[in-house]
Amino acid sequence: MLIIAAYDISVTSEGGPKRLNNVAKTCLRYGQRVQNSVFECLINDLEFKKMRKELTALINPELDSLRFYNLGHNYEHKVIHIGTKDVQDLSQPLIL
Amino acid sequence: MLIIAAYDISVTSEGGPKRLNNVAKTCLRYGQRVQNSVFECLINDLEFKKMRKELTALINPELDSLRFYNLGHNYEHKVIHIGTKDVQDLSQPLIL
Repeated sequence: MLIIAAYDISVTSEGGPKRLNNVAKTCLRYGQRVQNSVFECLINDLEFKKMRKELTALINPELDSLRFYNLGHNYEHKVIHIGTKDVQDLSQPLIL
Repeated sequence: MLIIAAYDISVTSEGGPKRLNNVAKTCLRYGQRVQNSVFECLINDLEFKKMRKELTALINPELDSLRFYNLGHNYEHKVIHIGTKDVQDLSQPLIL
């Protein structure tokens, strides 16, 4: 199934840049980066559960936000892209 | 139906901050901001078409990215949120 994972990490808070880096790294293990803080992950239920657990342990729940959307198995016609597909340097904090 | 709209705007490019501002304003007319660059829009087909057209006209397609996900009508169990729901100051360029 296709899972969309999006996050907002409070990088100005203590430990924020490290959390951002760890969250991004973890997302990259499960899927493809399509925007700075949005990933598309072709994973099964078990992997999705594991991903959620790992990400939940990484964030500060009072400051950071994770949001997941389950597009199921028939996702081909549910995704529309407009504009550039270039991905910026992922090793640096990103300015949106 | 529930449409997820996500964007990456190249704010360091010429006119970038203005495009970011215009794109965010347009998204706000169609839905609710759930993360800095992610909106959830409860709209019909016609509104979705209109929204795409407006946003496409606002961005620089060589630098900016728009991505839409259609979660359909039965979206209640397709969305998972973890962490804070606070939205930061939207009038400033945001560092993620």
